[in-house]
Amino acid sequence: MNPRTGTALQVALDYYTAWTGGDMDKAMTYVADDVVCDAPAGRIEGAAAYREFMAPFAAMLIRAELLSAQGDDERATIVYDTETRLVASGPAAEWVTVRDGRIVYSRFIFDRLPFAQARG
Amino acid sequence: MNPRTGTALQVALDYYTAWTGGDMDKAMTYVADDVVCDAPAGRIEGAAAYREFMAPFAAMLIRAELLSAQGDDERATIVYDTETRLVASGPAAEWVTVRDGRIVYSRFIFDRLPFAQARG
Repeated sequence: MNPRTGTALQVALDYYTAWTGGDMDKAMTYVADDVVCDAPAGRIEGAAAYREFMAPFAAMLIRAELLSAQGDDERATIVYDTETRLVASGPAAEWVTVRDGRIVYSRFIFDRLPFAQARG
Repeated sequence: MNPRTGTALQVALDYYTAWTGGDMDKAMTYVADDVVCDAPAGRIEGAAAYREFMAPFAAMLIRAELLSAQGDDERATIVYDTETRLVASGPAAEWVTVRDGRIVYSRFIFDRLPFAQARG
């Protein structure tokens, strides 16, 4: 068991609830300082870079719907759909590894194509 | 428990092993006739349409690496990376619902952008 906030699954859910609720400060409390995130555009390293990546997306979010959350103490996978000002349905999956109550690794999967098309 | 082949997780893994091994015939034995798949380009309905969607991708697959498989008797999420003739790294997530040993619903998430770019 994770001593700080329970399982990886709970951390992934708390993180999701925070950022989709518009609270990036709280969301970042679930992200390790040395987080590594493999996102569609490449690797993101460190909490500051991670926040730069997520904050603009969070800022344009209209609605998110959690579709699935599965995991154990160390790893979790969440699947959700998003509606943003750019794209009506932009589903994503995050597979995260958690240590000491924070996400240390994230594999982030979503389709960039509709966002690229919306931006022209 | 699923009476035919065990849990949704096992079905998802058996399906993945079959198609990434180039055996689409075997892969389709894990897919329900009336499967519904929400893929990046839209909804696919029925096993024939699903096979038309997957077979060209399977045919250009060089290598697949399973990153994560989590689930229970009814639902599973698998995350994997693919190398194809078009794209060196094309990760994907599949969140599936299984009934009677077959996938009846799949939410399929991957980034179409590098494939679109590779095709020009």
